[in-house]
Amino acid sequence: MKQRNIIVLGTGKYLPKKRVTDTDMDIRLGVKKGWVRKKSDVHVRYFVEDETASEMGARAAYDALEAAGLAFSDIDCLVCASGTMEQVIPCTAALIQKAMGQEASGVPSFDINSTCLSFVAGLDVMSYLLDAGRYQRILLISTEIASLGLNWSQKESAALFGDGAAAVVLGRTEPGGTSKLVHADMQTFSEGAHLSEIRGGGSKQHPKYYNALNMEDYLFDMNGSEIFRLASRKLPDFVDRLLQAANTRMEDFKLVIPHQGSAMAMRLISRKLGIAEHQLMYITPDHGNTIAASIPMGLHEAIRQKKIDRGDRILLLGTSAGVSLGGAILDY
Amino acid sequence: MKQRNIIVLGTGKYLPKKRVTDTDMDIRLGVKKGWVRKKSDVHVRYFVEDETASEMGARAAYDALEAAGLAFSDIDCLVCASGTMEQVIPCTAALIQKAMGQEASGVPSFDINSTCLSFVAGLDVMSYLLDAGRYQRILLISTEIASLGLNWSQKESAALFGDGAAAVVLGRTEPGGTSKLVHADMQTFSEGAHLSEIRGGGSKQHPKYYNALNMEDYLFDMNGSEIFRLASRKLPDFVDRLLQAANTRMEDFKLVIPHQGSAMAMRLISRKLGIAEHQLMYITPDHGNTIAASIPMGLHEAIRQKKIDRGDRILLLGTSAGVSLGGAILDY
Repeated sequence: MKQRNIIVLGTGKYLPKKRVTDTDMDIRLGVKKGWVRKKSDVHVRYFVEDETASEMGARAAYDALEAAGLAFSDIDCLVCASGTMEQVIPCTAALIQKAMGQEASGVPSFDINSTCLSFVAGLDVMSYLLDAGRYQRILLISTEIASLGLNWSQKESAALFGDGAAAVVLGRTEPGGTSKLVHADMQTFSEGAHLSEIRGGGSKQHPKYYNALNMEDYLFDMNGSEIFRLASRKLPDFVDRLLQAANTRMEDFKLVIPHQGSAMAMRLISRKLGIAEHQLMYITPDHGNTIAASIPMGLHEAIRQKKIDRGDRILLLGTSAGVSLGGAILDY
Repeated sequence: MKQRNIIVLGTGKYLPKKRVTDTDMDIRLGVKKGWVRKKSDVHVRYFVEDETASEMGARAAYDALEAAGLAFSDIDCLVCASGTMEQVIPCTAALIQKAMGQEASGVPSFDINSTCLSFVAGLDVMSYLLDAGRYQRILLISTEIASLGLNWSQKESAALFGDGAAAVVLGRTEPGGTSKLVHADMQTFSEGAHLSEIRGGGSKQHPKYYNALNMEDYLFDMNGSEIFRLASRKLPDFVDRLLQAANTRMEDFKLVIPHQGSAMAMRLISRKLGIAEHQLMYITPDHGNTIAASIPMGLHEAIRQKKIDRGDRILLLGTSAGVSLGGAILDY
């Protein structure tokens, strides 16, 4: 365990213009009124109309800069940590830099991808570069458009998702400051690689092979119950190891900000891990599952709603397609 | 500048089964015999038949482990550093872990993407985690299938590319060892974001919108002369800054391993940067441009052909879609 002297200087969020209620979704999915809310507990989610992922990311990034009282010129690295891409080439970070109007800035911009855990992986990895002084301030941005890849015939899965972006400005802790990344860990068990996937669209099945018979290959396909089984088998040991390495207990966390994968799974796993109701940051009802943007949105809302103060210890925790488990212990 | 005590413990390479000569390409592109060699200097490149990116990556990774005298159990992190993905979800690193038969290993696996500079970005970023002791040995893998995304009507661009994979095992330098990453730098100028791209296939233009009128949007589109203009304007200052920060001169490098973007551009820019003919690692004739795999393939061949020895100072250098510039100074 090596603590990294980093601090969250500001957070931002962007939700697309189109507001989609659970009742709208009941109609779209052709189910009984009330089914979507019962299954997903998502009361409202947002879907893009004309927004691109990079535009959403740029909005969230400027929001985070404003919260931090900083300008883009204070930033020396831009990392896009998303599970979906805007274009196949180039990386989304370059497109966000452009959408921010910073085309000539030269600020290094690249992507880190661990699907729904991209933000946690990005935070973990980039914390070392901040701690070592390579960079002074990093924009870490998750921007996701889930709606375009949904398979509307897999109703239980389609009911979960929303679009949106979240961004965080990370800096180095000033001397005497207590903010830090205490510890982080990640594990990948690819035995579950095909339990949650979009098979088509990459080099294995190029878009040019899209046709009426294989169109579902280009949409999100999730075996929810198998993912849940794998996650509940692996998470308790993972979390034990994470807490032990940091010499901390679940009770020490002011707040646990989990990936809002699915309300039901989150509740069941939280109970198993000993996370108390009042410790759990729960933004599913008004966001849905926004893939990698889910955890930084939770962090943004926790700060905005004053659920955490400077010095509070928090836990970011989740699972992602891959299947990966990831956690980061932060002294905010 | 902060040196990172890391060492390249072994490298590996995989080329697909299908060997495609310049004459084969002349026929495929419908050009005069000799045109492809004259334009690209690629005598032979390899295209996938039934290989997937993760299978190629797994082969290269095992090749690198063998060269290092190590087993997968010695590895504690797997990073895929590629410009193309095998599937939209999950990240390619998880699929490589699976293709390596290491599904239950738990080894954290995620992607870093800066298009053609993904390997250099991955090396740069992950070197901090090795140096800090977070990981002891990392597999860094670039695996690319360019052939499926080529636009055969853009003949000059299509003539350049090949498929393949390369992998490197990175470790921490033993006490007393001289191997290190001396310095690395990166810049992104998104003014060039659309000079080299595949517009379709991501969330901006989902595969389901693929049709006869927009099919070119799903293929690689490069404005070679504009990219060249931007790169030659930006690279000299970038390289000056890189060398100055490391207090080193171009003459100090035993070898410069550039991204094999295009033979012509590489020669012109090398001359401008003062790289001598004997310093330039040139693998274009028997590989083509293999996107992010190009630089680690050059490194692999440099070691295999005994062009570099332990202690030699080398420079990895390139440009990528984005547009990004990247360089890393290594004492091998």
